[in-house]
Order: sequence, then structure tokens, then C-alpha cells
Amino acid sequence: MAKSKLTSRKENYSEWYNQLVVRADLAEQSAVRGCMVIKPYGYAIWERMQSVLDGMFKSTGVKNAYFPLLIPKSFLCREAEHVEGFAKECAVVTHYRLKNDPEGKGVVVDPEAKLEEELIVRPTSETIIWSTYKNWIHSWRDLPILCNQWANVMRWEMRTRLFLRTAEFLWQEGHTAHATKEEAEEEARRMLDVYAEFAEKYMAVPVIKGVKSANERFAGAINTYCIEAMMQDGKALQAGTSHFLGQNFAKAFDVKFLNKEQKEEYVWATSWGVSTRLMGALIMTHSDDNGLVLPPLLAPEQVVLVPIFKQAEQLQAILERTAPAIDALRKRGVRVLVDDSDKQTPGWKFAEYELKGVPVRLAMGAIDMENNTIEVSRRDTLAKETIPFDSLVDHVISLLDEIQQNIYKKASDFRSANTRKVDTYDEFKKEIEKGGFLLCHWDGTSETEERIKAETKATIRCIPLERDEEKGKCMVTGRPSVGRVIFARSY
Amino acid sequence: MAKSKLTSRKENYSEWYNQLVVRADLAEQSAVRGCMVIKPYGYAIWERMQSVLDGMFKSTGVKNAYFPLLIPKSFLCREAEHVEGFAKECAVVTHYRLKNDPEGKGVVVDPEAKLEEELIVRPTSETIIWSTYKNWIHSWRDLPILCNQWANVMRWEMRTRLFLRTAEFLWQEGHTAHATKEEAEEEARRMLDVYAEFAEKYMAVPVIKGVKSANERFAGAINTYCIEAMMQDGKALQAGTSHFLGQNFAKAFDVKFLNKEQKEEYVWATSWGVSTRLMGALIMTHSDDNGLVLPPLLAPEQVVLVPIFKQAEQLQAILERTAPAIDALRKRGVRVLVDDSDKQTPGWKFAEYELKGVPVRLAMGAIDMENNTIEVSRRDTLAKETIPFDSLVDHVISLLDEIQQNIYKKASDFRSANTRKVDTYDEFKKEIEKGGFLLCHWDGTSETEERIKAETKATIRCIPLERDEEKGKCMVTGRPSVGRVIFARSY
Repeated sequence: MAKSKLTSRKENYSEWYNQLVVRADLAEQSAVRGCMVIKPYGYAIWERMQSVLDGMFKSTGVKNAYFPLLIPKSFLCREAEHVEGFAKECAVVTHYRLKNDPEGKGVVVDPEAKLEEELIVRPTSETIIWSTYKNWIHSWRDLPILCNQWANVMRWEMRTRLFLRTAEFLWQEGHTAHATKEEAEEEARRMLDVYAEFAEKYMAVPVIKGVKSANERFAGAINTYCIEAMMQDGKALQAGTSHFLGQNFAKAFDVKFLNKEQKEEYVWATSWGVSTRLMGALIMTHSDDNGLVLPPLLAPEQVVLVPIFKQAEQLQAILERTAPAIDALRKRGVRVLVDDSDKQTPGWKFAEYELKGVPVRLAMGAIDMENNTIEVSRRDTLAKETIPFDSLVDHVISLLDEIQQNIYKKASDFRSANTRKVDTYDEFKKEIEKGGFLLCHWDGTSETEERIKAETKATIRCIPLERDEEKGKCMVTGRPSVGRVIFARSY
Repeated sequence: MAKSKLTSRKENYSEWYNQLVVRADLAEQSAVRGCMVIKPYGYAIWERMQSVLDGMFKSTGVKNAYFPLLIPKSFLCREAEHVEGFAKECAVVTHYRLKNDPEGKGVVVDPEAKLEEELIVRPTSETIIWSTYKNWIHSWRDLPILCNQWANVMRWEMRTRLFLRTAEFLWQEGHTAHATKEEAEEEARRMLDVYAEFAEKYMAVPVIKGVKSANERFAGAINTYCIEAMMQDGKALQAGTSHFLGQNFAKAFDVKFLNKEQKEEYVWATSWGVSTRLMGALIMTHSDDNGLVLPPLLAPEQVVLVPIFKQAEQLQAILERTAPAIDALRKRGVRVLVDDSDKQTPGWKFAEYELKGVPVRLAMGAIDMENNTIEVSRRDTLAKETIPFDSLVDHVISLLDEIQQNIYKKASDFRSANTRKVDTYDEFKKEIEKGGFLLCHWDGTSETEERIKAETKATIRCIPLERDEEKGKCMVTGRPSVGRVIFARSY
């Protein structure tokens, strides 16, 4: 069965994304409102992300642990800003038992099994973790604590989109405790660097490191650092955040330590996380109207070989010819799939692997067998070439590297082409309709930011960590500014 | 600070276990009733288990995926036996929003945010997964589906114990769909073999493969296969189960496929799982009154080096001398920790790593430096020896292997010594008080099994897959039996 084409990005970007996620077997809506099923192919990409990130965290000394899914309602209220930001739209567990319906219709909630205190399915775990750290931390000797957990979380979002905004999502959340402010700030910045390196090196997604304005800050943080990426429709996507929490949670949960001078102090904290939202960023940065484009470093299969055959003997001959090269590729760490199934035609397979974004496709048929050649197609540019079979292994290995670099460069060029300085609010209102990042002077107040958001739907994505000092005037109020910040519409 | 001794196993086995789990930094109770915090050291062991199992699953063709945490209440009722077994004691989400308390006391559940249908935190995922498979399966070409997920689940247990029985626990659950009964049965047996191999080879826990009696079967299964281990108090622990589900869930969720003859058939199913309960089995099988004993293949650190020094120069000299050997060990894949901290004394460190079950401890002080020797202690037997420093690398590598084999043999000998044939019910009542596995004839009826359970607290752990055919008479009713089954008290 030939598949119909995807809606093009130009036609309807949003619809293109929704179709692609489902058609490429990445994820789908479940029977539970707003919750997704991550399908094996999508999960395989997520697993690769996890594995790389986990190694990066561990190399900085972080260890994994696991904290409870459910959080007592009262914990959320301990930190005043946190509850405002998080406690509202969430899944609330009120009972712990069902019973047979007295009227015989299935099961009903047992009214006698009502919890004394409601439990909340974690929207994030600062509160339960800091209530635990209270028992772990007594002296400076117990610090730092560098914990991470890979977990599911829930936020009862009203409008959901696969990977980008779902009621349940998977993520990692790091929670660290430190003896000094400096050490905690350094940790928050270190993890931001880890995220940026991961995004750029593995996902091939260029990002801007910055700090959030007060309006966009994590509820309970002193500073929220972030990495921001630009999607192909010119909208921004926040790809990861790292928070310097000061002593807010230590105070809320009374977590103190005896310092080397035997004086009691509150502990300093950070938290940082990335989620399955990264899948959305990955898909939207590179993919095209033919389907997914995956960076080789994260592709579950980097190379697929499609033998073109009519009889079983032909297939056999192709498999025999190619086996040593496939073996050699695998020995050098390349993930190769050989699709010798006869359930589908070669044409169907070509379309399928294009849709699924396999970086390199190899095809070998009767003529190639005769000439001792093989056809190599790259997914990113869709270019094909026929090469001598004997050069295959080295060719593929350097091609994978080239693809990884090329898609990064393409994304980076796109971002540059869609980033502009804007100096007046009138110009801003016009330019923001075209999408992209607008670099503007801003007076540093929440009021101005809110006015801009209300009037243009654009927000400050971040104050870049690396920016030129440039004295200017706020485009809205004319008040002084020391440098440009990034405005954009965002996911 | 010197640590006080653990309660001994003889004194109070149950208390010994509870203390050990906490003191060895494996896990602790959380602020949420029945839910545990898995601490970094405990989680590191679990991660190693996950990683090995995950590789074993994948090598049989299984792929990971992720399905929603919450399950609509009505789903649980679709399979009649399943709801009886699972739907009762569970966490029920009834609302999706909190609001500020009108009386100003924190937050309260918003009565206007009541869900139309309650959602259950998954106690297991057959129902949500088979409701999903309905959309994935149309033709024989779509089969088999071999999915696994690593996830958290909740069962509202009244009496909980760390790792052994907790309201929330971590596990993997495999769910497969097949075109034929034979293929599904084969899959259930294949995964049982994977579990048994993992338990014996990696955990060094000998297990008996068997099938459950009807009473102990998974709710909704046709057959439940299991592996059963014996703990040091003679009680049995079910370490993993693999279910042949027949067409029960396919019928409940109307999942049919067109076979090669273009006829519609219901799909055949299996599910299989192991959980953080394995941690309990690991701890209770090998550990002693001094603390944890870990099998080298799963120990987060396999070797710890404790330098014994007074001045910094001494430490420096020891580190320089040992560095090449430590390096060589790491290059050969050995996980080595060098504890050169001056926060604690060597004596404290010795006790700590003993408590934490590090398989091999190396100590090097002034005399060893002079003699070019090193002290090697093994955790399993507590034996120490001083060896020439130059033979260290090979010595440690073969010692790790020896320890892995020795603790398996020890556990296996213990099980043999505590497994006995019993032929009369009077003898049974006496013998069951001593613990261990009792091999008895049973008439195959639920009534007899229930009577034995009510009178002795012993249950049939399994009907071993490999057992001698032996005609006999049920020890209770005198009715005929074709072979012995295993009775024991259990966790």
C-alpha cells in the first residue's frame, strides 16, 4: 500500500508536524485525554537521547535516584511562588480503592477509601525531594548532593500536542544541594552547558543560552537559565532549563547544615530538566515534506540496506556480497538495518525509510551486482550516487559525519537568516508576523514585557548570556537598556 | 562516627533486612505512605539490573515503548478476572485542578474540576496497551508485536516493606501480541528463561522455573510461569512472572487480525514482568550480619582501594604506586573506586564498604609500600590476604569471578539443604515451621490448596517445569497425583 503524501510545511506547518509524528511511528494520542503513547520508533530515539544525556550528567558527578510519584497536597504550598506556578492544573488522587458497583455496573470509587490528604501526581519534584533532603543533610560533609531522576510527570494542560505539550511526559529532573551560593550557581550553569552541548552536538540543533526574564522564570527560582532553539516556522522552542533556586526550597523545608565553622546555614539549590519535548524540537528543526530527518548520532538505524530482487537466489547473492561490508560497518559502531523482507516492495521501503528519516539508504540490485557498485542515498539532501562497492565502508562513515554537520549548518543558517535587530515597536509589530528571533532593547520591566505579549503574542525568550554590550532605548518605553534581548513567538 | 552493628539475622531476620536496606543507603520510606525513595546507591544497582535485562530483551527482538500512566476506570472492567484481581486497591484520580482555599489555608481540590470518568494510576498496563494494540493490529503482517516498557506502577498495599512490597514500585512490563497460540506460549516461556538466566547468572540467585496453580495465577492469564527463589530465612520469593494470556485481552478489547487465509481471528497475548522486588531478593539471598553482599556483576563498585596514610605525601606515594594497576583494571572493565578522602578514617571506610557489599577491598599502607605488597579482602567470605603488588590485576579479575560463583554456590547449597520431600500432612505441618521448600503430592484442586494455606500459611509456589514423574497420593486428600509441587511460606 503506497502512502499518501504529508501535508507540506508551507501549506500548514502545524498539520505537517501532527501528521509526521503519527505517520513516522513516533507517537500517537492515547485513550486518555492529553496523554500520548510513545511508539517503539519514537521511544528508540528518546532512549538514545537518554543514554547520551545520562552519561554526560554522570561525568559531572551526578547520580540517579528515584522519588515518589505522588506528592502530599500540603507540600506544594510550602514554597509560595511554587504553588502559584504549579499546583493548579494537576492530577489529584483522592481515593485509594474501587469496589464493585452495588448496581452491578462495573466498579465505582469506594467512598470509604477517601484519603485524609489528597495526593498530587508530581508536576515536578522539588517539594518531595527537598522534604527528603532534610533527612540527608546535616553537615557540610553531606554536601554537595547531586541527584537526577528519569521520571514521568503530569501537568493537566488544556491544549495538548504530541511531544510539545502533553498532560503526561517523560523527563529527567536534576536536584542538587550545595553549601554555597557560588557553587549552586556554578552547577546551574554547568548543566546549562551540558544541555547546550547535547542539543548542538547530538541533536544538531543550534541553541542560544540565556537567562529568563522574571515573567518566564520557574516558579520558585531566583534565576532560570535556558536554551532556546528556532523551529522551521520561525517560532522559538525552549529546549531545556536549569534553575538556580537560591535557598527558597531549603527554607520551605527547613533544610540546614552545619558549616565548617559549626554554624547553621540554609542549603543552596538547583534544579534542571529536559523532557520528551526535545523530540518535538528534533522533529521540527530538521524534517522536511518527505518526512523525518534524523541526525545520525541519534538515529535508531543510521543505515538501511534495501536489496532489490525478484528471486530468492538474487536476494541470497546480494546478501552474500554485502555481508562483509555490513559487518565491517557494525564493527565500527554503525547501526545498520538490512531489510530483506518480501512483505513489501523496494519502492514501499524507500518511501518508508525516507519518512522515518534513516540518514543513509543503500540499494543494491542486478546492475550493481554486475558492476560491483552500490547506490547510496542521503536523507538530508535526498542526493543519490552510485559508488564502487569496495569503497562503501569508509564512504558511509564519512557520509554520516557529513550529514550530522550539514543538518546542523542548515539549521544554523536558517536561524541566522531569521534573526534580526529591530529598533522601533512599529517595526516590531510588523516583523514579528514574519516569525524568527527579534533582537530588541527592552527596559527590563515586567509591565513592558506583558504589554508586548498582550499586543503581539511575543515573549522574551531569553537574555542571551553572550551578548554585546550596547546601550540603547527600550523600543516601547524609550527607557535605557544595556543590551538586546530575544523576542519571539514560541511553542 | 563508628556505626552500630546491624541486628543479626538470627535475632530478627525481618528487622535485619529493614535495617540493612536503610543503612546501606539502598532505599528509605518517603513522606508518602507506602512509597519509597530509592537512594543513589540502591538505584545504581537497579540501573545495572535494568541495563542487563534490557539488553537481553532486545536480543530476542523486543522493543521499548511507553504507554500512559493513567487508565480509564472502565478499561479495568473489560476483562472480568482482571478487574477482580487488580482494580480494587489502587490510586484513583478524580479531579484535575486545585484552587486557592477560599479560607486562605493553602490549596483545596476544585470541585468544579471533577473528571467525568475517574482515572486509575496503572497497577499494570494490559488494558491500556490492548486498547492501543487494537489500532496497531489489522493483518498477520502486523504481528508479532513485542513491546516492553520500563515504568512505575501503583498498588495500594496495606502493609509495605522496602523493595518487597511498596505502594509504588518500578518495573518492566512486556506485552506481546501473536498470530498463534503456540507462538504466544513460546514467547511466555522464552521470557521466563530470560528471567531465570538473569537471576542465576547476574544476581547469583538460584531459581526454580515453574507454573503457578490456578489460585496464584495472574488475574486474566491462562497460565502464569514464574521463577521462585529461597531467601535465607527459608521463605520463598517470587522473582519474576511471565503470563500466557490466551485471547482474553484481545477479546476484551476486540483485537482481531486477518490471517493469511483472510479470516479474522483474535490475537494471542503474553505479558511478563520483574520489578524492584528483585532488589529485595538480591539483598536477602546473599547478605550477612555485617551488611550487604553484592554479586560482582551487579555491584556499582566492584573494587574499592583504601589508602592508609597519615601525611599527604604518603597518600601521594600510594596513589602513584597503585595508579597503573587501577588503570589496568578499569581498562579491563572493572569498576574501581579509589577512596582517598580524608573526611573519614580507614577503619570507618572498611566498615562502610563492608556494609555496602563492595566485593573486593584493597588496602595499602606503609608496610605494603615497603614490601611492594597489597592487602586484598573479599566481601563474601571476609577472607584477607596480602599479595605481591605486581600480581594485583590478574588476581582481582579472577577473584571477582570466584566471588560471583561462590555466592551462587552458597545460595544453591542453602536451597538444597532446605528442600525436602514430605509425604504426610502431619509431617508437613511440622516441617513448614522450619522453613524451606517442601516437595509434596497434591491433588490439583484449589480447595486443597486453600485448606493448606488457611491451616499452615504455606502456598504452592509452583509446579516445577522440570520435575520427575512420580505417581503419588495427595498428602491431604489421598487422591492421586502425578508429581510433587513446591510448597513454602512466601514473601
